[in-house]
Amino acid sequence: MKKPLILISNDDGITSRGIRFLVDIMKKLGEVVIVAPDSPQSGMGHAITIGETLRLQKTDLFKGLDAYKCSGTPADCVKLAKHHILHDRQPDLVVSGINHGPNTSISILYSGTMSAALEAAIEGMPAIGFSLCDFSSKAEFDHVASFVESISRQVLKKGLPKGVALNVNFPPKQNELIKGIKICRQARAKWQEEFDERKDPHGRTYFWMAGNFVNFDKGEDNDEWAIANNYISVVPCLFDLTAHHAISILNDEWDIVGD
Amino acid sequence: MKKPLILISNDDGITSRGIRFLVDIMKKLGEVVIVAPDSPQSGMGHAITIGETLRLQKTDLFKGLDAYKCSGTPADCVKLAKHHILHDRQPDLVVSGINHGPNTSISILYSGTMSAALEAAIEGMPAIGFSLCDFSSKAEFDHVASFVESISRQVLKKGLPKGVALNVNFPPKQNELIKGIKICRQARAKWQEEFDERKDPHGRTYFWMAGNFVNFDKGEDNDEWAIANNYISVVPCLFDLTAHHAISILNDEWDIVGD
Repeated sequence: MKKPLILISNDDGITSRGIRFLVDIMKKLGEVVIVAPDSPQSGMGHAITIGETLRLQKTDLFKGLDAYKCSGTPADCVKLAKHHILHDRQPDLVVSGINHGPNTSISILYSGTMSAALEAAIEGMPAIGFSLCDFSSKAEFDHVASFVESISRQVLKKGLPKGVALNVNFPPKQNELIKGIKICRQARAKWQEEFDERKDPHGRTYFWMAGNFVNFDKGEDNDEWAIANNYISVVPCLFDLTAHHAISILNDEWDIVGD
Repeated sequence: MKKPLILISNDDGITSRGIRFLVDIMKKLGEVVIVAPDSPQSGMGHAITIGETLRLQKTDLFKGLDAYKCSGTPADCVKLAKHHILHDRQPDLVVSGINHGPNTSISILYSGTMSAALEAAIEGMPAIGFSLCDFSSKAEFDHVASFVESISRQVLKKGLPKGVALNVNFPPKQNELIKGIKICRQARAKWQEEFDERKDPHGRTYFWMAGNFVNFDKGEDNDEWAIANNYISVVPCLFDLTAHHAISILNDEWDIVGD
């Protein structure tokens, strides 16, 4: 049987520990191609590079594997992989990560990890973004290895509903073993920003974005609850942002709609 | 009666014609505050600036109005406006644009214009992204002025369903008058990229992202159809990306879910 083709990207950059860990698992499942940013791209959301040029270079960082570093965003990497490197050969699975830090709830919108997965979904490829809810550069990944493998095998075997990509978050390593996997919705939460105002050596003002995460969600069927209770959260995600329920509301309420 | 507070941003940058046109209309509707990028940010998606510093400077570009240019992305602008400039005073309306170029269908994901609107929705503010389906720097805006005003007045008067922002696209100016406003869903479409490979003066390869827009959608209830038929498209959008219908599918099909 032909090995499945697996495309791997991330947003922490091609030298991060998370992607190396992911590559080691994916090597067991299929033929691997790696295309990842040459520098960290956290917080890039679904940005693409249209007003500037892109660089792409083969790298021997991953022994014996086909790997490329790219000057662009995670979404750029997936586009370049599909249309340039793979000459429109369609991967059977696209995985992104493992991100150093959570991409639960509202963070999905800012997440480069998930933009690679959603870009793959737009291209009709089954895709998963993996994130570990631990920002530490020394974060341990070994407690999630078997789950990364089993979730990826499920998707390879069963596919995903049309237009759906998975946002998978893992609890940080702790004394208690992970309890299991929960299929969830995105929690209702946001970042409450504070801007740290400083002066540069030339006396000019600048800011650092900082802030606190605020969870408004009281439900137990969402990704924040899952992580807080030591479950893996799996949120199926769409790139169709339409608020379908709101179409009839606006048609009813607005007096300026129509011919 | 107190004038409504209206926050204005965009992604083409604070000097673009589109935002100036939008400001002139909004001045009639309320108290205006402008916070927009100091350079073009097209294609930035929902990027935010977390690994770098932000600059913010008051500008006198808009006579008699409170206006700031920001080194960050459109999403940064909304965050800085809310939490720093307005000291958590809540705008009654946030408008973004008018973008030079369409943000219909899948382009919403790459759109800085819409990321400003979605960021505002996350903050609980009624928000609209306006885009003109004409990339020309000489594009005419006058045919949409009355619609920008009437749509904004509707939202000020009636609000929007919780968590919803509007993605409004206008047809380019043509001989026939605009036929009206259609409340739509996001069309199923994508960009089919081609990468234009070139050599720099040092002999090194680089790429420009290029490509064609491909519309797969045969329906007449979507934004691409509306624009092609000279209607204004209004798509209500969510920042909850959950594929709710897929939760039960995965729970049924997967044999690795549970405790």
